[in-house]
Amino acid sequence: MVAFKLLAAVLVAGTATAQTFRRSAACPKLGCVYPPDQVDFIAGQTFDIRVEVQAPVNGSEAYNNGVPSPDFTLQIGSKGSKLQDVTKFFGIKADAEVESYNFTYFEDLFAKEEGAATPVNVLAKSYRNIQLHQPGEYHVVFTYNNGMQTTATWTVLPLPKKPKAKNIIFFLGDGMAGSMVSAARLLAHKTINGKYQTMLKMDEAEAFGLQMTHSLDSFITDSANSASALFTGKKMTVNGLNMYTSTGNAFGSPKVETVFEMARRTLGMQIGVVSKAYIADASPAAVCTHTSQRSQYTAIIEQYLTGVSGNYSWFPWQGVDLLFGGGAENFLPGPGNGNVSQFDRWAEHGYQVGFNNTQLQAFDNAQRALGIFTRGNLSTWLDKNVYPDTLANAIQPDGTQGAYDQPGLKEMTLKAVDMLSTRAKKRKTGWALFSEAALIDKEMHVQDTQRALGDLLELDDTIRATLEHLKKIGELDNTLIVVTADHGHGFDVFGSADTKYLAKQTTDRKKRDAIGAYINSGLSDYVVPDDVLATNHTVFTGEQGSGFPVTWDPRYAIAHGWAAFPDKREDFRTATKHERIPATKNAEAGSGYFFNPDDKPDGFGMTGNMDGTEAQGVHSLVDVPIYAWGPGAELFRGVHSNVDIAFNVAAALGLGRNKNVTTTYQK
Amino acid sequence: MVAFKLLAAVLVAGTATAQTFRRSAACPKLGCVYPPDQVDFIAGQTFDIRVEVQAPVNGSEAYNNGVPSPDFTLQIGSKGSKLQDVTKFFGIKADAEVESYNFTYFEDLFAKEEGAATPVNVLAKSYRNIQLHQPGEYHVVFTYNNGMQTTATWTVLPLPKKPKAKNIIFFLGDGMAGSMVSAARLLAHKTINGKYQTMLKMDEAEAFGLQMTHSLDSFITDSANSASALFTGKKMTVNGLNMYTSTGNAFGSPKVETVFEMARRTLGMQIGVVSKAYIADASPAAVCTHTSQRSQYTAIIEQYLTGVSGNYSWFPWQGVDLLFGGGAENFLPGPGNGNVSQFDRWAEHGYQVGFNNTQLQAFDNAQRALGIFTRGNLSTWLDKNVYPDTLANAIQPDGTQGAYDQPGLKEMTLKAVDMLSTRAKKRKTGWALFSEAALIDKEMHVQDTQRALGDLLELDDTIRATLEHLKKIGELDNTLIVVTADHGHGFDVFGSADTKYLAKQTTDRKKRDAIGAYINSGLSDYVVPDDVLATNHTVFTGEQGSGFPVTWDPRYAIAHGWAAFPDKREDFRTATKHERIPATKNAEAGSGYFFNPDDKPDGFGMTGNMDGTEAQGVHSLVDVPIYAWGPGAELFRGVHSNVDIAFNVAAALGLGRNKNVTTTYQK
Repeated sequence: MVAFKLLAAVLVAGTATAQTFRRSAACPKLGCVYPPDQVDFIAGQTFDIRVEVQAPVNGSEAYNNGVPSPDFTLQIGSKGSKLQDVTKFFGIKADAEVESYNFTYFEDLFAKEEGAATPVNVLAKSYRNIQLHQPGEYHVVFTYNNGMQTTATWTVLPLPKKPKAKNIIFFLGDGMAGSMVSAARLLAHKTINGKYQTMLKMDEAEAFGLQMTHSLDSFITDSANSASALFTGKKMTVNGLNMYTSTGNAFGSPKVETVFEMARRTLGMQIGVVSKAYIADASPAAVCTHTSQRSQYTAIIEQYLTGVSGNYSWFPWQGVDLLFGGGAENFLPGPGNGNVSQFDRWAEHGYQVGFNNTQLQAFDNAQRALGIFTRGNLSTWLDKNVYPDTLANAIQPDGTQGAYDQPGLKEMTLKAVDMLSTRAKKRKTGWALFSEAALIDKEMHVQDTQRALGDLLELDDTIRATLEHLKKIGELDNTLIVVTADHGHGFDVFGSADTKYLAKQTTDRKKRDAIGAYINSGLSDYVVPDDVLATNHTVFTGEQGSGFPVTWDPRYAIAHGWAAFPDKREDFRTATKHERIPATKNAEAGSGYFFNPDDKPDGFGMTGNMDGTEAQGVHSLVDVPIYAWGPGAELFRGVHSNVDIAFNVAAALGLGRNKNVTTTYQK
Repeated sequence: MVAFKLLAAVLVAGTATAQTFRRSAACPKLGCVYPPDQVDFIAGQTFDIRVEVQAPVNGSEAYNNGVPSPDFTLQIGSKGSKLQDVTKFFGIKADAEVESYNFTYFEDLFAKEEGAATPVNVLAKSYRNIQLHQPGEYHVVFTYNNGMQTTATWTVLPLPKKPKAKNIIFFLGDGMAGSMVSAARLLAHKTINGKYQTMLKMDEAEAFGLQMTHSLDSFITDSANSASALFTGKKMTVNGLNMYTSTGNAFGSPKVETVFEMARRTLGMQIGVVSKAYIADASPAAVCTHTSQRSQYTAIIEQYLTGVSGNYSWFPWQGVDLLFGGGAENFLPGPGNGNVSQFDRWAEHGYQVGFNNTQLQAFDNAQRALGIFTRGNLSTWLDKNVYPDTLANAIQPDGTQGAYDQPGLKEMTLKAVDMLSTRAKKRKTGWALFSEAALIDKEMHVQDTQRALGDLLELDDTIRATLEHLKKIGELDNTLIVVTADHGHGFDVFGSADTKYLAKQTTDRKKRDAIGAYINSGLSDYVVPDDVLATNHTVFTGEQGSGFPVTWDPRYAIAHGWAAFPDKREDFRTATKHERIPATKNAEAGSGYFFNPDDKPDGFGMTGNMDGTEAQGVHSLVDVPIYAWGPGAELFRGVHSNVDIAFNVAAALGLGRNKNVTTTYQK
């Protein structure tokens, strides 16, 4: 038996913050199996297995004074055949060593209030970098604590007969609920007698469906978790990037291979990552990185380049082919990053490095590239195109503050298509591009509606331009285009508000009288170039049919609201300055967040309906839309779980393999 | 020239209440043409034409001291051919008489506050009961006021090559937004490690799409308006039932034929109407009645039976084949109804009449039937099945109060299918059934979430049972099943609330600390038969996999909210008594509605975000889902306007006709 130490004392409480009211994800009894029961796999998809025996010291599940038994076995067998020890089944020469760790959690809010934490001691084993190749069912039996058992049934999905698509573009509208698509259409497209004169490109998709975003162990997801589900086909846990559970250290938990990793490993495909967020953010990171803590930005940047390191065995990764986004702070030497400039490191690995749109557009299409265009997130479409004064706050990667030639989503995406297709053609491979309209979510969180919808319309404009460009370069018939979201926000439009009347009233109650529902909602005032009853705050920004509003701050604004919101004020107008902060701390009022007196001071007040520690809105349950074009698009019709997206991508690209395959990737 | 009188004085202000901030629907200039520009028609669809010349007395559009010119002409021609006078084009022997009426409106809220109304005098002509038979474009030119012109282009859609379906069932989930479908799934269906063990029947539809619900002249619709769009293929105006504009009298405005009327007229089809609302309510009424005021309940009941009356020329209507729902008050002699019992009248017309589920089930399948099962709306699924004590308030049609054998949506629908198919078989016709889950909307308005979701799950259960029943009786392959909504409510789930903790806190702020987002939302507690941490308010109602929650009032409830709401209190619990009244008048607090002190007294308070005259939530913009099965289902895939639904139904049933057809209908 291997040696190990049981820690009876409670360790760092910090590790438990993300799991306050449940012991562990996917671990209903005291023995946990990862991947858990009812998981599906792509044939040949790489993953780690981990089993844990947990012993709570106290509480409703207290076990043996918090001492888990070190004797446990894991057996596996395909359906109808005899179970074998996991080492024999997978041909693992030496059994894994037993690891130990511990964590604490609270059983409920009363326990939390009383500080009555439940410490849990854990023993575990991991088996890494393994695959299942034969389609069908597998039974897994974990036996522990003198005969207790946790079982799992895994299913390896059938191999696709033949690939449908050579390339894929995966657009993510982060946080994009269907209600926001409806609202964006209303702002940017004009109706005559109820008939839209132009429509969103998304409205015209070849295939349309929905997907459910709930996670493994919570019905509200975060973006790390849900992007991991979209890309691995496995439901996971809040904050986890292609890795189960958030206990233990940030890199030791069990990993799962993404469809992007499989596309590279099995087909040698070119991989590109584009986002308007800082590029270490959860959604782009989910393309190919692995950590249970999405905040491990330094490691994420390193993994984009060199893959999983340390003794957490995984297959080799030779770097993404292009990485475009924000977040220069995570590349610069400094606290958390050590003394190394990742810009220098990437250059040493042969990447072109650029910091603005001019440099981006000048990249040699045949060479790999890193384009980091700002510190933090890129500017919103609205700030860049309508309120350029706000760009005085934009920060170039070198720290210079002020306006500069920052690319938008369309510029980054079209350049990425050109580079990937140029490189792929030379190598006779396909290519896969991830492109994220990240700021829809970030602006919805702070309830800056117009900035969120501006970036949603920028996504739609980018999709339109991309489809046209693919046609032009002859790749449209080879390329599957999928557009979806990782989760929604509870948001809707319910009428119009006469902002002129609202501003003139002196009480909150009277201000609300400015709102018209039903017949008094009228028509969209955002598509009318001139305001009949003049106002001094009209902003003209586009032409009818351009895909963007003509006027961004009309007298009759959309009256809209959220299912979840902090204390705040609302006036329904478009803020001229970025960025909105709806709620701030106010020590006199109490703990937590209260309405920000500097935000929309002419608006009416609303008391929130969330835990007072939330300063912004939160994600919601609503199923989110899927739009698809091209070969394989039909797979995305109807109602899906988010994990189905990964399986559909795998089927369309033909990623399944009945043996371990590693294609030589050419840098 | 015909004689007429101009009324310079302002008439009854009451007629203007529904059009406060716009002069008229679809009338941007002072000459109005109905049907307006850009309207599509089914070939052979019956409609009225109306033109109006309007002269505002004052305001921004004041014209000739409010005196419209009596000289106006209307010309029409198919594309490429010469325009003809409307009478010549349609072979109308005598020109229509000029009618006059007037109305007032306010140009904006400031005008309303000052009482500065704008009176408008109107001259009009109507041409009734006409059809266009040849597919293609038609140009319409209305010339008035010495040369001013309003033009319209109408398109008659191509004739379908051949019918796909013999029968149709049109299920309406009134007010059912996609977010509610997601929430209902969470309440009724269990996940294991993120995988649903059972799903909604709607999730498994053969075809899935969305439709946009905005109206002709307002982006937020009411149910009359949107159901008319679904059934006629014409965008209309709030409160209008298959009739344009809400000005003038309730029956004189221009009508449009519905697909149900066409199915009867052209194919002699059996028509059934089922709803859980009072049966004169807007959605069922939209099947075959015509009025610009949905509140004309007496006339609506009469129109179900005998069609359009008076001098508003229309084709003959020989009564629906069955009518099942609530609203006995509109059938009884009394104020508004005259001295006539409609029950007696319908019986005289040969209908079986029944007042409870026993009588419903005993109806002879071969005879027409009227089943009116309550006064007002039927009971919610939750009241009927989980809180039967609340049925003490149920009122039988004869006025008796208390529990009795009231049917649910499933009982009404399955019986309707049996009756329609029996009668249709004998007559060698098809049949069309409208079945409405009406209370989803009504309970969402009062923000009684669980009652709304209970009726949504009842709809899903009814769809499942109906599909099975159609298969059993051999009609599944002949029948198109469409499920959609008329509009949504801005609603979403954003976490879970520990109702036990919430109830124990003494301040609003602390109560909000009971809410957990993201990982702390946890799993659905509604599918767990026993509450681990005991609570005294668990209600057990079903088994896992039954399609309904196991527990309706668990300790961990869904934390949820609305985009629009009145002042109210929330505790996230299921109210044990029907019906919720979130806001009430409070003379001390001011005018309008304030939170109801008797509603959820243990909850936390929220100030609303609507005009204080709204006592309930209002409809929202979000596109609503479409689910379809059977022949023609594929037509409903993707993103549609609500008017497309009528055209798809017409195409599936083969309703288009290139000549005027009236099939003999056999009672």
